[in-house]
Amino acid sequence: MTSLPPHPPLSAPSPYDNMSEVARAAYRARAAAADIAPLPRATKDDALLAIADALEVRAREIVEANARDIAKAREAGTSEAIVDRLTLTPERVRAIASDVRDVVALPDPVGEVVRGSTLPNGIDLRQVRVPLGVVGIIYEARPNVTVDAAALCLKSGNAVLLRGSSSAYESNSALVRVLRDAVGGAGLPADAIQLVPGESRESVRELMRARGLVDVLIPRGGASLIRTVVEESTVPVIETGTGNCHVYVDAQADLDMAVDILINSKAQRPSVCNAAETLLVHADIADAFLPRALEALAEAGVTVHADPRVQAYAEGSKATVVEATAEDWDTEYLSYDIAAAVVDSLDKAVEHIRLWSSGHTEAIVTGSQQAARRFTQLVDSTTVAVNASTRFTDGGQFGFGAEIGISTQKLHARGPMGLPELTSTKYIVTGDGHIRG
Amino acid sequence: MTSLPPHPPLSAPSPYDNMSEVARAAYRARAAAADIAPLPRATKDDALLAIADALEVRAREIVEANARDIAKAREAGTSEAIVDRLTLTPERVRAIASDVRDVVALPDPVGEVVRGSTLPNGIDLRQVRVPLGVVGIIYEARPNVTVDAAALCLKSGNAVLLRGSSSAYESNSALVRVLRDAVGGAGLPADAIQLVPGESRESVRELMRARGLVDVLIPRGGASLIRTVVEESTVPVIETGTGNCHVYVDAQADLDMAVDILINSKAQRPSVCNAAETLLVHADIADAFLPRALEALAEAGVTVHADPRVQAYAEGSKATVVEATAEDWDTEYLSYDIAAAVVDSLDKAVEHIRLWSSGHTEAIVTGSQQAARRFTQLVDSTTVAVNASTRFTDGGQFGFGAEIGISTQKLHARGPMGLPELTSTKYIVTGDGHIRG
Repeated sequence: MTSLPPHPPLSAPSPYDNMSEVARAAYRARAAAADIAPLPRATKDDALLAIADALEVRAREIVEANARDIAKAREAGTSEAIVDRLTLTPERVRAIASDVRDVVALPDPVGEVVRGSTLPNGIDLRQVRVPLGVVGIIYEARPNVTVDAAALCLKSGNAVLLRGSSSAYESNSALVRVLRDAVGGAGLPADAIQLVPGESRESVRELMRARGLVDVLIPRGGASLIRTVVEESTVPVIETGTGNCHVYVDAQADLDMAVDILINSKAQRPSVCNAAETLLVHADIADAFLPRALEALAEAGVTVHADPRVQAYAEGSKATVVEATAEDWDTEYLSYDIAAAVVDSLDKAVEHIRLWSSGHTEAIVTGSQQAARRFTQLVDSTTVAVNASTRFTDGGQFGFGAEIGISTQKLHARGPMGLPELTSTKYIVTGDGHIRG
Repeated sequence: MTSLPPHPPLSAPSPYDNMSEVARAAYRARAAAADIAPLPRATKDDALLAIADALEVRAREIVEANARDIAKAREAGTSEAIVDRLTLTPERVRAIASDVRDVVALPDPVGEVVRGSTLPNGIDLRQVRVPLGVVGIIYEARPNVTVDAAALCLKSGNAVLLRGSSSAYESNSALVRVLRDAVGGAGLPADAIQLVPGESRESVRELMRARGLVDVLIPRGGASLIRTVVEESTVPVIETGTGNCHVYVDAQADLDMAVDILINSKAQRPSVCNAAETLLVHADIADAFLPRALEALAEAGVTVHADPRVQAYAEGSKATVVEATAEDWDTEYLSYDIAAAVVDSLDKAVEHIRLWSSGHTEAIVTGSQQAARRFTQLVDSTTVAVNASTRFTDGGQFGFGAEIGISTQKLHARGPMGLPELTSTKYIVTGDGHIRG
């Protein structure tokens, strides 16, 4: 792929018959991206409405394809939890269509003037949002991601290459067929939405090496998938989703609030990236807080992986407490488990977080304005929550209306990513024959 | 390096005695970055003023070190142009110090609230600018980049790892000694500014693999350096500077304006990335424009690499015209050369640009509002200039006051990068015990 010219012709990719299927898909996506980038919002919204309608009209076709994936998954002995994530019912298809209509209601980020001024020499300078171009999404079983990602990319004027899990291949193929028919029927290039051909790992590798054809890759899924993409991709990557989140209970915390935030952060939905994985407690409040915290965690069914100072409070409690090893500080359990330690100061809590956090979300519970200020200044994560659950780090909660993922990297986008995060910018310089002296 | 824990202790890196010098430097930079990130503007400005003063006071030491680099360069038969770029005189050191004082005058991007609202549930949401952390700069001979980059990184609260050319090693060592002494004297950690140890290629390779320790790498220099970093780095990279820029003269262009913009774009300073490398002329204006353009290019000493249709106008002109090959469309000459072609329409010009441009800057000269609008919509480059020279794509010209480079990628920053482009953001979520229902 790297030996090809850096940019595709706008015409069909016929000169490139020898290239792989993935490369051909990427070339076609670039051509489609050039076509949809300048489209006005109304045209894109019409196509999104056509998608929502088509999903409802063709729900049976989608559910039947999904049934084949489910049968294969059951044969392979896949766990019921994963089968459930894979399953599409007519109700779920309707819900997906409804999500697409929600995207219609969101403002179009393309064309937004981010910054603008008239320079001293009279030149007008405008920095405006433009689509990224071709967005590659590599994701795991959930077929709803197929439609979500396609809708958000289309709304933001991007073409999308979807590389879902092979376990959802039949479902994704049916969904993408419906999406492409609807987009084509609305007069837009169907190639703006493509399923990456091939179920093999090789197609992921080709996608990762398609620098110049694909503008950004967004891996969504488990830590190992994300690590592979981050390390092997020459295409720019937005790292998402690994969340080793902390709740720090400060010396001056309100005890009821601290218990509520701890339990909500850990146990309201343990399988997601914004759930808490470690509890840090200031030594001065440990006597008052830890017995109550251990009781509440026990009631929520949470096993505590405790340092020696937390273990001292376990005797006589109902809590399930096991000894923490260094590995626990580094673990994203995504289950009813939490690591716990006592720290001697806010700064020691910050040091622990800097050392072990994945930089997703950390919460402080405190009544002290100074402590809140110092914690928010020193903690270097996508989101710092003061007297609020870690579970709020979410595009929907933040009012973005949609979310393509949660970036845990510092470049381009950090934290929940909505439609503006699927854009780049360009400068428009307008003069009257201005030249540089 | 990848087998080390992802995050450094805030204390000295003594547990990591076995690691390479580059890794140790990166760990020390991370600790320094954590210290300077929360500093207020006044503290950082004081350190910058101390740097400017120290550069002037110790100019002789710097010039003497520079003389050793120059002697070595002359022995190696280096061209006078490159020796000139390498040379530091007392006047040039004073100019560099003055540039540092200009950075003092710029606003601090850190802490800027980029977006903020109160959510329906009463949570206050703020997205604020924060430093990136550790910035690695890989650059070629100019020693002034050493001070520029260090000053911009310090102002934006980042630690910087500087990997200059080995041909400027003595100069850079002296400069960084002065910078570190000044920063330390101002009470800030000297490790916020470090020269990457070692003159070998190995140190560049280690820097490129220091993911988790270095937050971003910015290569500044020739196309091959940038390509190597982009392809081999696991650290996120901001691609800078390759400029295959186009001037398109539309059917309705003012002829005088078109000649002025062409000559300014090509010949005012041909060695820089925002100089034009290709001229595209609408067929309808070729008869009127090309004879004048060829004459003006001849007067400016520019050789024209022409397609057959441009060649037809060369007979009888004073111009030096050679036949263009496909390679010419893809070449960043950085010299008194320009490729030239006649196109049948604005859309054909856009197609040529999409196929061959590096996406830096393209200019259109036109009297037509429709043509200007279509060109700015369809051309996908960092900067699109309407009736203005390509040479305006520059942080100084754009009023940013400083420039760390010109990004030609779409992620994070695109076009000239000033201080805000050296930051990331974080979200601060403030509640009163809010939990998710």
